[in-house]
Amino acid sequence: MAQMNPTVGAIEYNTKKIIRFAEKARVVKADLVVFPELAISGYPPEDLLLKQAFIDDNLRALKDIAKTIKETAAVIGCIDREGDTLYNAAAVIYRGRIRGVYRKMYLPNYGVFDEERYFCRGDKPMNIVVNGVKVGLGICEDIWYEDGPATDEAGAGAELLVNINASPYHLGKDLLREEILSKRAIDNNAAVAYVNMVGGQDELVFDGRSMIIGSEGERVVEARAFKEELIVTDLDFEGSSKPVKKNKGVEEVTLTAKKVSVDRSLPIPKALLASLSNKSSLADDPLREVFGALVLGTKDYARKNGFKHAVIALSGGIDSALVLAVAVKALGADKVTTVFMPSKYTTKASVRDARDIAENFGVELKEIPIDDIFGDYIKLLKPAFKGTARDVTEENLQARSRGNIIMALSNKFGWLVLTTGNKSEMSVGYATLYGDMAGGFAVIKDVPKVLVYDLSEYVNKRGGKELMPPIPESILTKAPSAELSSGQKDSDSLPPYDVLDAILKSYIEDDMSIKEIVKQGYAHRLVTKIVAMVDRSEYKRRQAPPGIKITSKAFGRDRRMPITNRYESK
Amino acid sequence: MAQMNPTVGAIEYNTKKIIRFAEKARVVKADLVVFPELAISGYPPEDLLLKQAFIDDNLRALKDIAKTIKETAAVIGCIDREGDTLYNAAAVIYRGRIRGVYRKMYLPNYGVFDEERYFCRGDKPMNIVVNGVKVGLGICEDIWYEDGPATDEAGAGAELLVNINASPYHLGKDLLREEILSKRAIDNNAAVAYVNMVGGQDELVFDGRSMIIGSEGERVVEARAFKEELIVTDLDFEGSSKPVKKNKGVEEVTLTAKKVSVDRSLPIPKALLASLSNKSSLADDPLREVFGALVLGTKDYARKNGFKHAVIALSGGIDSALVLAVAVKALGADKVTTVFMPSKYTTKASVRDARDIAENFGVELKEIPIDDIFGDYIKLLKPAFKGTARDVTEENLQARSRGNIIMALSNKFGWLVLTTGNKSEMSVGYATLYGDMAGGFAVIKDVPKVLVYDLSEYVNKRGGKELMPPIPESILTKAPSAELSSGQKDSDSLPPYDVLDAILKSYIEDDMSIKEIVKQGYAHRLVTKIVAMVDRSEYKRRQAPPGIKITSKAFGRDRRMPITNRYESK
Repeated sequence: MAQMNPTVGAIEYNTKKIIRFAEKARVVKADLVVFPELAISGYPPEDLLLKQAFIDDNLRALKDIAKTIKETAAVIGCIDREGDTLYNAAAVIYRGRIRGVYRKMYLPNYGVFDEERYFCRGDKPMNIVVNGVKVGLGICEDIWYEDGPATDEAGAGAELLVNINASPYHLGKDLLREEILSKRAIDNNAAVAYVNMVGGQDELVFDGRSMIIGSEGERVVEARAFKEELIVTDLDFEGSSKPVKKNKGVEEVTLTAKKVSVDRSLPIPKALLASLSNKSSLADDPLREVFGALVLGTKDYARKNGFKHAVIALSGGIDSALVLAVAVKALGADKVTTVFMPSKYTTKASVRDARDIAENFGVELKEIPIDDIFGDYIKLLKPAFKGTARDVTEENLQARSRGNIIMALSNKFGWLVLTTGNKSEMSVGYATLYGDMAGGFAVIKDVPKVLVYDLSEYVNKRGGKELMPPIPESILTKAPSAELSSGQKDSDSLPPYDVLDAILKSYIEDDMSIKEIVKQGYAHRLVTKIVAMVDRSEYKRRQAPPGIKITSKAFGRDRRMPITNRYESK
Repeated sequence: MAQMNPTVGAIEYNTKKIIRFAEKARVVKADLVVFPELAISGYPPEDLLLKQAFIDDNLRALKDIAKTIKETAAVIGCIDREGDTLYNAAAVIYRGRIRGVYRKMYLPNYGVFDEERYFCRGDKPMNIVVNGVKVGLGICEDIWYEDGPATDEAGAGAELLVNINASPYHLGKDLLREEILSKRAIDNNAAVAYVNMVGGQDELVFDGRSMIIGSEGERVVEARAFKEELIVTDLDFEGSSKPVKKNKGVEEVTLTAKKVSVDRSLPIPKALLASLSNKSSLADDPLREVFGALVLGTKDYARKNGFKHAVIALSGGIDSALVLAVAVKALGADKVTTVFMPSKYTTKASVRDARDIAENFGVELKEIPIDDIFGDYIKLLKPAFKGTARDVTEENLQARSRGNIIMALSNKFGWLVLTTGNKSEMSVGYATLYGDMAGGFAVIKDVPKVLVYDLSEYVNKRGGKELMPPIPESILTKAPSAELSSGQKDSDSLPPYDVLDAILKSYIEDDMSIKEIVKQGYAHRLVTKIVAMVDRSEYKRRQAPPGIKITSKAFGRDRRMPITNRYESK
C-alpha cells in the first residue's frame, strides 16, 4: 500500500513519486502495489477536470507510469475518459501495460465532495487475478454501501478487496472507517486493503492510516497517520481453491495465469518496512490526532504553495499560542516570525505572555505598537464621525491596523500569514474582517474554543519532551479577551465557551433547529441569539482564508450557506 | 405566469407573495397560474436544504398556500420530501388541495448548480388536465434534453408544456433559451410556457423574461427582464380533440372534468396586464441587458440583506464611475455616499474627475486624503523594513489604508461597501486584498474591462435622458492607472485590455490550454504570463466579496479551482 502525498495538479511530481513507490515495491518483491484514488492528479482537482489539456496530461502520465512498472502488478487511482465522459478510475498495470480500468460506481456529492460535477458512474465490478488470487477493486465511496461492487466481486471469488481512497480527515473518522471495513470484510469473507492518501490540500487533510482488515473483521495492520509510507504486508490466501458462488457481471482481468516463483529468501531492505501498528494509538488520543492534522495541513499548505516562512500575530492569548505551536512543529522555529502589536488596551499580562511564549518557542518576535496608527485613523475620521458615539468601529480599526501591518510584512518578505481565529469565533462573527481575519491560512478555523484549550494542554503535557517548550500557564488560565476596549472580556458578549460550543455543534454540525437545541437544556433566548449571530456572519466567513477541516462539518466547501438568507430558524 | 422575486429562506414573505399573485390570477380569471422553481424557498437555498426544520416549514407553507387557492389551478415550485429523500418539485394545486406533485427528472450539477447534492431525480412525467386541456409539467433542466419528460407528456396528449425555472442570467442566455424552447415546441407540436424567477441572490441574477412559445416555435409573448410581473395570456387549444399518440408512464391529474364556464365579459383590470413585447429589445442590446442585471443584482443584494445605503470609493477612474452609475440607478442618489481618498500619487485629473462625477450624479462626496496614514505606516514599519527596497508592499499599504477607512464608514453608519474591481483585474490579481477588494458586494467583478468601457458609454448615451447624468468624458478617455506610485499605468504590467480580455476569456470561460490560445494569434510568452497570473491569484479571489455573474463562467461558485494547484498549463 503506497500511502502517498501527491500535490493537486503536479502531474509530473506525482508521476515520479508513483514510480519511486512502485520501484520500492518491486525491490521488496511485492506481488501487488496499490496507490490512492486520483494519485496522478491529486485530490480534489476540482475544475481542473474541466480542462481538456489537464485530462490529456493525466492520461499521458498514466501511460508513462505503466511503461516503468514491470514485475509488480499495480493499481493506481487515475482519471479515465471515454468520449467527453470522465470517470474516477483505478488502472490495473502489469508488465508495462494497462490491463484493465475499474470505474468508481458510487460518487460522493455531499459534504466536501462534488464528484457528480465531474464524473459519470461506472457500472462494472472488477476482479483482477494476481498470482492466482482474485482481488476485487473499489474506490472510496464504493465500499461504504452494502450493495457496492465488493459484494459482487467477493461473490465471484475475490479474497482480497482493494479499496483506494482520498478520504479527508475529521475527528473520529478513523473509527467509523474501521467499523465499515470490518463489516464489509466479514459479510464478504474477504480481506480488505484500504489505501488512503496522505497530505494537506487547501481545507482538507488526508490522514493516511491505510489499513488491512482480515476476513474476520480483525485489523491486520494500520499505517501511521499523516505520514507518507509504503506499507508492506504478507497475506495468505486460498487462491484458486476458494469456491466461486456466483458471477454476475464482474469483469475479470488475469495478470498472471499461475503463481510466479519469487525468491523470498532475499532480504527486504529494513528501511522500506514501515513501522506499523496493529492498534491505532491515535484513536485513543484525539488530541494527538487533531494536532497532527493541524501540523500536516499547515506544513503542506505552506510547502505546496511555495512558502518557506510564516508570520503570526501574537496577542498573548491562547489562540495565537496554539497556532504558534502548530507552526513551529510544522515549519521549524527558524521559519516562523511572530509580531506583537499592543495597544493601550493590551494588558500587562498579555505583553508578558506574548514575550514569554515567543521566547519559549525560540521564534523571532517583532513588537510594533499600534496606538499611533490607531490615533491617526481616529483623527482622520473625526469629521466624518462627528456626532457619533464610539462603537465596534473603533475596535475594528485597531484589528485592521494590525491586519495591515502583518500583511505588509507578508508582502515585503514573502511570508505566509497564519491567522489565529478559532471556530467558535468564526461561527458567531467574533472576528474582524480584514483585521485578525487577514491572512493566507486559518490554521484553527475549524477548532472550537474548548478544543483549543484541550490542544494547548496537550501541547504542554507532551510538548516538554517530544515536541516543544510549553505555552505559558497564564495563557491557559486567564479569561479570554480581544482587548479592543477597556476591560473587555469575551464573556461580556458570549456565554461560557463550553455552552457556546455545544450550541454551535448542534446548530452547525447537526443542523438542529432552535427548538431541538433548547430541548437539550439551553435557554431559548440564548440559543436564538447564538443562531442569529451564526446566520448573520456568513458574509464574513465567505471572505475568510481557508483552514483545516477538523470537525464533521467545517465552514467552507463543507457547509454551503447563502449569504442572502432570510430563513429564521425556530 | 407569475414572474416573481422571492428571497431565499424567507418562507413567509414568499408565501404571501405567491398568494397575492394567485389572487391576481383569480381576478383576471386565469385557468392556470404558474410559479417559478422553488418559489417558496427561493433559489438556491443551498445547505438550508439539509435542515429538517427548513423542509418542514416549506411543506407547511405549501399547505397554507393550497388552502387559499380556490378557482384557479396553480403550479408552484416547491420542495417535496419522501422519507429522507428530497425532490425539486412542482405542486399542482386546485380548489384548496394539492392534487399532484411532479418531481424534477434532470438535476443540473455543473456551473453554479449543485442539485445532486440535495435532491433525488424524479422518474415520472406528469400531465394535468385543466379545463379539458392537457398540460405537461417540467422543471428547468428537464426541457433542455430531447429525451426529457416533455416528449412523453406531448405523446400523451399535452398541448401546452409548462416549464418552471430558476434560471440565472448570463450574457446571451436568453437567445440560447429561446432556441431550445422553440425546438422543443416544434418537435412536440405543443406550446411551451417558460416561467422564470426574477431577482438577485448573492452571485446570481434571475432575469425573468418568462415566455410563451407557440407550437410552431414562434414567440407568442415575452415578459420583461429584471422585473416582477404577472403575465396574462390567452391561448387557444384543441382540448380533448387532440389525439393521444402513446402514453408510456405519464401520470395524469385531472383538475376539472369539463370546461368550467368563465364569464370572460368581465373586464380585466388594466393594471394587471403586463406590458409585454413579442420581440425582446434586450437581445438587441446586450449593454442594456448587462446594465439591468448589475442594477437588479445590486439592488436585491442591498434590499434582501437589509442595507439601505451604500458607500463607494471613487478613484476618478472608470471602474468606480460605472459602479456609481449602477448604485445610483439601483438605490437612488440619496442612498449612495462616495469617498475620495487621494494620495500624493493621485493625479489632478483624477481629483477633478472624482469631484465631477459625484456632482453629476448628485451624490455626497467625502474627501479623506491618505498621505498621513500612509506615512505613519511607513514610519512604523521602518525598523522592520530596514535594508529592503520599495516594492508592491508600499502600494498595498495605500490600498489597505483606503480599505480601512471605507470599512470604518461602513461599520459606523451601517453602509454597504460596493467594491469596484472588474473581472480583468480579478483575473490577474491586479487588486489589493483587504484594500480595494474590501467590501460587501463586488458589483462588476464579472465584467471584463472592455465591457466596463462599453457599459460606461452606454450609460452616457442612454443616461442623459432615461437614466442619469453622464460620466465625465475624461474618465472614459484617460489611460487606466491604479495611481499607487509615480506615473504608474496599467499598461506597464498588463497588455492592452482588448488583448488581455480575449486571452482571459479563452482561458477562464473556454478552459483553453496555452497552446490553443497561442494558436488564436497571441504571443506564447504573453499567454503564459497571463495564465500564470490567473492561477497565482486564486487565493485572492477566494477572499473576494460576492458579485454578479455576467459571463458564462464567473469566479466563485461557477469556477471552482483549488488554491493549492501546481498544474502548469502548456
